[in-house]
Amino acid sequence: MQVADSAVTAQLATYAATAKYSDLPAPVRQEALRSLFNILGCTLGGARHHGVDIADTALSPFTGQTQATLIGRGRRADPLHAALINCLSSSIYSFDDTHEQAVVHPSGPVASAALALAEQKPVSGEAFLAAFALGVELECRLCKALTVPPAKGSMAWSGTGITGGIGAAVAAGSLLGLDMARMRTAIGIALSQAAGFRAMHGSLCTPLMPAQAAQTGLRAALLAQAGFTSSPVALEGRYGYLTVFSEQPDLDALTGGLGERFEILRNTYKPYPCGIVIHPIIDACLELRQTHSLDPDRIASVAIKASPGAMALCNNRNPKDEMQAHVSLHHWTAVAFIRGTARIQDMDTETAVKDPALMAFQDRVEATLDPNRAADAAEVTVTLTDGTNYTCRIEHGIGSAARPMTNAELEVKFAGMAIPVLGEERTQALMRQCWDLTNLSDVGNLARAAG
Amino acid sequence: MQVADSAVTAQLATYAATAKYSDLPAPVRQEALRSLFNILGCTLGGARHHGVDIADTALSPFTGQTQATLIGRGRRADPLHAALINCLSSSIYSFDDTHEQAVVHPSGPVASAALALAEQKPVSGEAFLAAFALGVELECRLCKALTVPPAKGSMAWSGTGITGGIGAAVAAGSLLGLDMARMRTAIGIALSQAAGFRAMHGSLCTPLMPAQAAQTGLRAALLAQAGFTSSPVALEGRYGYLTVFSEQPDLDALTGGLGERFEILRNTYKPYPCGIVIHPIIDACLELRQTHSLDPDRIASVAIKASPGAMALCNNRNPKDEMQAHVSLHHWTAVAFIRGTARIQDMDTETAVKDPALMAFQDRVEATLDPNRAADAAEVTVTLTDGTNYTCRIEHGIGSAARPMTNAELEVKFAGMAIPVLGEERTQALMRQCWDLTNLSDVGNLARAAG
Repeated sequence: MQVADSAVTAQLATYAATAKYSDLPAPVRQEALRSLFNILGCTLGGARHHGVDIADTALSPFTGQTQATLIGRGRRADPLHAALINCLSSSIYSFDDTHEQAVVHPSGPVASAALALAEQKPVSGEAFLAAFALGVELECRLCKALTVPPAKGSMAWSGTGITGGIGAAVAAGSLLGLDMARMRTAIGIALSQAAGFRAMHGSLCTPLMPAQAAQTGLRAALLAQAGFTSSPVALEGRYGYLTVFSEQPDLDALTGGLGERFEILRNTYKPYPCGIVIHPIIDACLELRQTHSLDPDRIASVAIKASPGAMALCNNRNPKDEMQAHVSLHHWTAVAFIRGTARIQDMDTETAVKDPALMAFQDRVEATLDPNRAADAAEVTVTLTDGTNYTCRIEHGIGSAARPMTNAELEVKFAGMAIPVLGEERTQALMRQCWDLTNLSDVGNLARAAG
Repeated sequence: MQVADSAVTAQLATYAATAKYSDLPAPVRQEALRSLFNILGCTLGGARHHGVDIADTALSPFTGQTQATLIGRGRRADPLHAALINCLSSSIYSFDDTHEQAVVHPSGPVASAALALAEQKPVSGEAFLAAFALGVELECRLCKALTVPPAKGSMAWSGTGITGGIGAAVAAGSLLGLDMARMRTAIGIALSQAAGFRAMHGSLCTPLMPAQAAQTGLRAALLAQAGFTSSPVALEGRYGYLTVFSEQPDLDALTGGLGERFEILRNTYKPYPCGIVIHPIIDACLELRQTHSLDPDRIASVAIKASPGAMALCNNRNPKDEMQAHVSLHHWTAVAFIRGTARIQDMDTETAVKDPALMAFQDRVEATLDPNRAADAAEVTVTLTDGTNYTCRIEHGIGSAARPMTNAELEVKFAGMAIPVLGEERTQALMRQCWDLTNLSDVGNLARAAG
């Protein structure tokens, strides 16, 4: 593969160093705010995960001054450690956002790097949101350029691992006010540390890959600010980033229509912390439960017509732990009918996976393959003990590209994750503060309020 | 490419977790000590480079407790920062070691991670040298397995960037006493953060890649010790390390004859801090100068028959700065005849590249292509003002595989780098302490003596 020397890195750096909040169309500002709102909730949701505890405890002897908030953990650390830990929290339940085309979860690395920096000196909500939007934009563009046709690339790479760093570096560089040359250096440094492959699936290294991108991206911006150097053609140069990470990159996806076409508008959010092919099934179960005020004790059986993806990945009646429950459609069907929810705590090994009521209900759930059903569709029929049947068909699950989550649905998701950590009152205040971001004069207050 | 699931990661982890100093043959111990001696000198040599100043200054606000020595910098920091900065120093002049076959500079990441850890709690010289030797061994094996035929891999990757982490993780894991399972986890974590490509050549990102490997490798061992998780098949698994970093890995190079065949025996050291194809020319000039007690003012001209590599890369009569001087055979010929040396300070922009005496001498140097001359060979003829001619032919330059540097030559190199930083007395004491490593009860003292 040869990439034309078309100053790709310089183009991206020029855009990142010059675009302002006032340059962003209203829908871009809105989606950036929704992305930030969602990832802040996810960060709170993951903040008490044992994997985060392990990393924070193991590394805290090596951390510096307590200038930055470890979100949801009740303590502070240096910004580089905060970027790592907060991004780890945000992605540890795979409950974060996903670009509709590129397999990248863009907000975690960008938000974690930018929030850690925003606690160093006051930054306005508008400047912060612009920095965040630019980081997400370039990260999504880069990931799309690597793998989405007409590009050809290997699925073995972790999309967020190898592109999160540019997002974090750009957002941090924007907040630091880097000029074009230093922004280009920051991008180059961050890309030179891009890493991660998918063999790590199912281990704590999966969330560590975006976390590492957050930290190295922030560090790249700090080094560039101080005068460190990089290749000015890190992306397109001989033996450069595009050569090693893609068989045939799509340069138009990377640099075409910068400032006019926005990939952040294709960002999507998950309503439930489980395998995405289970989502329409949960939608159907919750709708049936509410519409017919169903008492789970009256349910004799549940018949699910499931998509090929759901059957291949999630047809597991008796999950043994959180990892298995995450991808068991039987588990989530039981949770939806019995608890009327589908939250992080509903896959906790002790309080959910081993809950006798849920385990008993799973035996009444039967899934069958519907080969023509789309991945975001499902049909669920309940049969009551008196013989009554109710059926619900979902054509597009909540959170799919065709049926984006509303702001109200994002709030339910946020609250479900934040209330166990911050309590009801602080959660409500934090949500209001986040929606009101562009009126803040010091975004550091948002991070501190989420401590 | 498909890699057979032959438990490659587990094999390496088992070896790394169980091999002891007593298992290492005497030549392996000796070469490990020589490698450590050399890299400690290189770390001192680079410690005052402006690129190290930039990184240390930019990142020091984010560093933690001052438990570890920043070698040659007169201050201390947390071990993760120390691993980064010390490795950066060790590689910033490209004066470090090189495996004879694989393009990897193995000792920097391993020594930097291990020394930083050795200051946390006392470790004996024997245990330290074994940990260092194991790290270097697995790093060299991995790099060889990626690219040296019969393996096929891309030269675009930074060999040290993508394999330094396993070396650092194994050495640190050995010092921490990790069992096989945790060693395997440490290796997996480190590999999941492997990064670096060659487009960075000529910028400070080039030494940052091994530095990053040192830091992430050390961190991987700390995380594994604390219970973090990784894939148990990080190397050979589907979408794993070997898939992404090699078209066709050579598994025998990786795991064949573990504990019997040692790649560290093929480690080589450079006597001069310049492009390696210039080395035999410098050897010839220094030998002529000494043998005939040549006064440079009596030299009318120097005629060099140079290898194709030297002509292609280093035929630059008037270098403008340190970067250009690094690869100018005219510059180093002048330095050798006038100063009788070839040290880091002999390519300093202000005190060497712009030295009028050196610049004037360069005009008297003429290089011509000898198409059949090997890369480690050269022929130099001086003509004196009285018409006398002297010729010196070098068949194998010092430091080449056929003519390894002696311990005495390593001492000259070490002293040349260390004395400007530590002074004569401390340098001599440090060299003695390093050669005496296996009798030390606390290797932390070695690091502290190099502060």
